[in-house]
Amino acid sequence: MYQMSGNCLVGQSGGPTAAINASLSGVIKQALNSSLIKEVYGTINGIEGVINKNIIDLAKTFISDNDLELLKHTPAAYLGSCRFKLPTVDLNDNKIYTQIFDTFKEYGIRYFFYIGGNDSMDTVMKLNHYAQKISYPIHIIGIPKTIDNDLQVTDHTPGYGSAAKFIATSVLEIAKDSEVYNVDSVVIIEIMGRNAGWLTAASALAKSNYSDSPDLIYLPEVPFSIDKFIKDIKEVQKRKKNVVVCVSEGLKDASGKYICESVSSGLIDVFGHKALGGTGKVLEETVRNKRKCKVRSVELNVLQRCAAHIASLTDINEAYEIGKQAVICAEAGNTGKMMIFKRQPDKEYGVSIEAVDINLIANKEKLVPREWINEEGNYVTDELIRYMKPLIMGEPKLTMKDGLPVYLTRPNI
Amino acid sequence: MYQMSGNCLVGQSGGPTAAINASLSGVIKQALNSSLIKEVYGTINGIEGVINKNIIDLAKTFISDNDLELLKHTPAAYLGSCRFKLPTVDLNDNKIYTQIFDTFKEYGIRYFFYIGGNDSMDTVMKLNHYAQKISYPIHIIGIPKTIDNDLQVTDHTPGYGSAAKFIATSVLEIAKDSEVYNVDSVVIIEIMGRNAGWLTAASALAKSNYSDSPDLIYLPEVPFSIDKFIKDIKEVQKRKKNVVVCVSEGLKDASGKYICESVSSGLIDVFGHKALGGTGKVLEETVRNKRKCKVRSVELNVLQRCAAHIASLTDINEAYEIGKQAVICAEAGNTGKMMIFKRQPDKEYGVSIEAVDINLIANKEKLVPREWINEEGNYVTDELIRYMKPLIMGEPKLTMKDGLPVYLTRPNI
Repeated sequence: MYQMSGNCLVGQSGGPTAAINASLSGVIKQALNSSLIKEVYGTINGIEGVINKNIIDLAKTFISDNDLELLKHTPAAYLGSCRFKLPTVDLNDNKIYTQIFDTFKEYGIRYFFYIGGNDSMDTVMKLNHYAQKISYPIHIIGIPKTIDNDLQVTDHTPGYGSAAKFIATSVLEIAKDSEVYNVDSVVIIEIMGRNAGWLTAASALAKSNYSDSPDLIYLPEVPFSIDKFIKDIKEVQKRKKNVVVCVSEGLKDASGKYICESVSSGLIDVFGHKALGGTGKVLEETVRNKRKCKVRSVELNVLQRCAAHIASLTDINEAYEIGKQAVICAEAGNTGKMMIFKRQPDKEYGVSIEAVDINLIANKEKLVPREWINEEGNYVTDELIRYMKPLIMGEPKLTMKDGLPVYLTRPNI
Repeated sequence: MYQMSGNCLVGQSGGPTAAINASLSGVIKQALNSSLIKEVYGTINGIEGVINKNIIDLAKTFISDNDLELLKHTPAAYLGSCRFKLPTVDLNDNKIYTQIFDTFKEYGIRYFFYIGGNDSMDTVMKLNHYAQKISYPIHIIGIPKTIDNDLQVTDHTPGYGSAAKFIATSVLEIAKDSEVYNVDSVVIIEIMGRNAGWLTAASALAKSNYSDSPDLIYLPEVPFSIDKFIKDIKEVQKRKKNVVVCVSEGLKDASGKYICESVSSGLIDVFGHKALGGTGKVLEETVRNKRKCKVRSVELNVLQRCAAHIASLTDINEAYEIGKQAVICAEAGNTGKMMIFKRQPDKEYGVSIEAVDINLIANKEKLVPREWINEEGNYVTDELIRYMKPLIMGEPKLTMKDGLPVYLTRPNI
């Protein structure tokens, strides 16, 4: 494609993270400095805002570097988000596409940046496909974002490092908390990730020469057996009073059934309890009945994706940079691509940022490779730990007021 | 009493906090510098360690100021904790007391410091009582510690400020997370506190000129009505899409029954669900059935008492100082007292540290005054907010390694 001048539009989509606004900040910063891009617009609630013409002028909001710095550290999606799947491109039945491209025309959009996960990249792919079909001149670039770290091709995704840092810190602190009483105990920490175990794996970072927990880690990539799980705990209890176990919310048994659903399957209610709720609660009841010791389950819940107060500086800086690079990539004439991180092969950690064909990413999922999980399926390997470690390095300097971090307020639409 | 020289023993008891080790650090620092105190011992798992002679030499562990600084910021109880109630003093049946005072004699203990909550102060009171009965020369001083902030006489308790800061920060971040989608939603955040609402009240600190959540706050001091609760939510939904509600785990109905127990009382299962678990989960199910919108409940769980990475510097410094002052108070000849904070009446926040008779504290509970809760019983007053605000100020400078805070490892006993 060719270079062209015009206005730009940026949106956010999918689940919030602590770093998604850093990418938005990067896009705005670079777009405001661009010689090709004139106006810098934001769409409210992702592609829904494009359909409904819910568009704001970001140049009016972000006039100072201080605003952009605050935005960089604000968790969740400043522009709002959506979960919206575009229909397959069909020129005979294209009402939604017509609405979207009407908005593009009305606002003179020649650059569209969409920050999101693999579902959002489906949107990027389809919009690009449609633009080519109707020969509409526009550069459409996807910017990765997901705490799940499950996007293909890229070494890792913005948002993952901060979530991993919150998880590792919390596991470390919960482990300290669990060991104060002189009684046998098991703590089960439930971590997000329905299919991919990257987040649960991050709990391993809590283990160091000053903490020997967690003791067991179960990822959804390996079929989960309750009998084996109880046997594993029994084994750890031979050498340790206080056991810390980290489990993915998405654990499934050999038949592919979620453990958190097994309560209704009769697998758990033999113990006399019916439990609603998550994997952690189900396993808590199981351990209580089988091991007769003190048991607690802790669900880290949404803080995993919004605890910006313990974000990874590496993650925030990379998310900001990949936002800037997306603009540069579009200015150079690219479209239908997603930006990725490529890890430098040197000993010292570093990444380069490149662009790849969106078709390699959209609707695909990257799971933890089986060889990065130990043979028993109850811990991760050193290689996986080495992969994760640099991603949680560094702490952002937050602006504090009255003892709390200052975060930007969402525009009132 | 009179001044005397001898050895000192320090222990920790009750639930962990982010600040209890700061008080331990203060005791050790002051005791090591004391001209009256010779050896500085620690008891493992509180009074249980005194009974079982599980005693360590702290002077050997904490030889550098750096160690004491790390200890200051390490969450949970470094010496381990216990929940152990001493029997009423009875000289005709005093086996446990004999064991305890045998240990005191064997180790030459003339100073005993016990860091804990109102149950632990019962221990201080009884030991002091027994010492007087048998005319055993010892100075016994209680050092307050509880995230619940429910001790009498003292303006507030060490540990509360850090828990309040974690709660306020998390509520702020969860509120940001809750508002990204363009759908009606209710988030219910369950906060610790079975009887006292101080912790749940701290959620109000999240409200500022850059965040308008939480919308509703329910403390256990006011009888809870599910009908009123649903009406309150309906009212907020008239002006707001995303509602954030903070509830204490200890909410009770007018008859004094815990809401989390109401599932088995038939109050909830009319909605077709039986729920195990906490107040938040019960209310989540209720709102889902009554309001037909997206609902989520989040239990902040044990991170409230161990999230040292977001501790309040004010809290940590005060906890350290009250530990030091306890030693000075004992050296001056006092016994059977607990150290307290007295807030200075000036505009600028500050506290003085004093000692009061332990009988004023032990086994008593300080609830949130009714006049610090609004008339409707669904929010807190500005006066309560002014009371809490200074307690969460400031952030400790943590030692970080590999992206995580460095915390001390508990002695391996």
